[in-house]
Amino acid sequence: MTDARPDWYIEEEVSGFRLGFEIVETLHEEQTGLQHVQVHQTRSFGRLLVLDDCVMLTEHDEFIYHEMLAHVPLFTHPEPRRLLVVGGGDGGTLREAARHPTLEQIVLCEIDPRVTAVAREWFPALRPGLEDPRVQILHRDAAEYIREQARAFDVILVDSTDPVGPAAALFEQDFFEEARQALRDERGILAAQGESPHLQREQVRQLHAALGAVFPRTWLYQAHIPMYPSGWWSFALATLGLDPQATEVHERIRAAALPTRYHCADVHRAAFALPPCVRELLP
Amino acid sequence: MTDARPDWYIEEEVSGFRLGFEIVETLHEEQTGLQHVQVHQTRSFGRLLVLDDCVMLTEHDEFIYHEMLAHVPLFTHPEPRRLLVVGGGDGGTLREAARHPTLEQIVLCEIDPRVTAVAREWFPALRPGLEDPRVQILHRDAAEYIREQARAFDVILVDSTDPVGPAAALFEQDFFEEARQALRDERGILAAQGESPHLQREQVRQLHAALGAVFPRTWLYQAHIPMYPSGWWSFALATLGLDPQATEVHERIRAAALPTRYHCADVHRAAFALPPCVRELLP
Repeated sequence: MTDARPDWYIEEEVSGFRLGFEIVETLHEEQTGLQHVQVHQTRSFGRLLVLDDCVMLTEHDEFIYHEMLAHVPLFTHPEPRRLLVVGGGDGGTLREAARHPTLEQIVLCEIDPRVTAVAREWFPALRPGLEDPRVQILHRDAAEYIREQARAFDVILVDSTDPVGPAAALFEQDFFEEARQALRDERGILAAQGESPHLQREQVRQLHAALGAVFPRTWLYQAHIPMYPSGWWSFALATLGLDPQATEVHERIRAAALPTRYHCADVHRAAFALPPCVRELLP
Repeated sequence: MTDARPDWYIEEEVSGFRLGFEIVETLHEEQTGLQHVQVHQTRSFGRLLVLDDCVMLTEHDEFIYHEMLAHVPLFTHPEPRRLLVVGGGDGGTLREAARHPTLEQIVLCEIDPRVTAVAREWFPALRPGLEDPRVQILHRDAAEYIREQARAFDVILVDSTDPVGPAAALFEQDFFEEARQALRDERGILAAQGESPHLQREQVRQLHAALGAVFPRTWLYQAHIPMYPSGWWSFALATLGLDPQATEVHERIRAAALPTRYHCADVHRAAFALPPCVRELLP
């Protein structure tokens, strides 16, 4: 800080609407071969990770996003053993996934090695996932990698940036078809971050249309994520048959009694309750 | 607009975190005897009403706030006949309340007549409530008015600004005691807008402590409201015995089949599902 005037990280993902985080100090900034990476110490949200001018996570809120992306699908599967995380190089999704003792192997396929290195250096709360002995980290293009993985995984989590730039392919029907064949058996599950159902309605509609063309059963579930534009975020869940609202899913969540701060059996059920203005986005 | 540079309405209700709405045109601005009132045409949220530098509503999102404040308590009561709305001079809560055919009398107690006049002029979608023949509009201090209303109302809705300035008294235990004696019988219900459970945790805690000291049964319920800071908003519900989650409440919602865009039986139930990080704020 060279003067007393506060500095702000301003995000305008949706034209005409901005979120601003006051920056106390910029801790790191670099242009990797793939994207622009920033780490700021903010005044109200702890540390902030930004990729290509989009908020990826803040220390204060990341638990909500990561718990909801990991636990909703992982509890839906009766016994997940092999997990693929696409993107998610920061390690937050790994940390939550690693709380599931049935998992024997967790592959992280993150295209940019610098994201993992930066997260490891600046976000201590994310490290446990990156250091779990079951985790194997690959720095490859996930769309390519997944083509080689026939019947390999029980659950696939797409922890991507927005559907522009490097992550655009991860929202397409072709990718979902490859992902489907990478699922081990008829209990296979895919979950993906799914944009804001309030501000990015057309992207949400397209994502669910693409997913619905490939998987027999799909759902949208929601969470309150203040660090993202509108604070109203969605995830997409697709299965070959399993139901995330089955009684045994709620029983598994209660029995595990993970020390989560957002996801729990009640919130798991409630996340699938859609207002009419969201229901109309689905096929 | 005098030049090509866009203008922004910036709100920093919580220090270090800002929401910004791009302004296309400022339609109205005045200092009333009580507060500063602004109406802006925004680029992405329709028209915006601001009172004392706090977003009250935008045309795009107001339906969520008003549906959730009005329908959750009004469907919890088996036959609401007399309703008091405290604050809410813009008319949005009235519009939703007026959809309940059992209501015979609706009193709006809004301290600032200019809020009602400005809303009537600039927000056509809010007018129906203000013009409903069952509505009586009083421009009085609600804390004073309610003292004279022994056993007068079935439901009281507190549609206030934040607990600073003119509305501070509406969050205090004294006010809730007066409100309780203004409820007609043991089926009485009070609901209030309740701040952000993410950004205003101490205010939420105090509100529920005060309410819990007066009413035998209290709940917090949540909604996604992008126009407010964090997008994660709460409401407080207090009853003398009724349960907002009783089966007959969900049946009444389904039978009424109101043309709502956010509230529905599923969302009504889900709104009460609290993550551990919110549950811990309650007494």
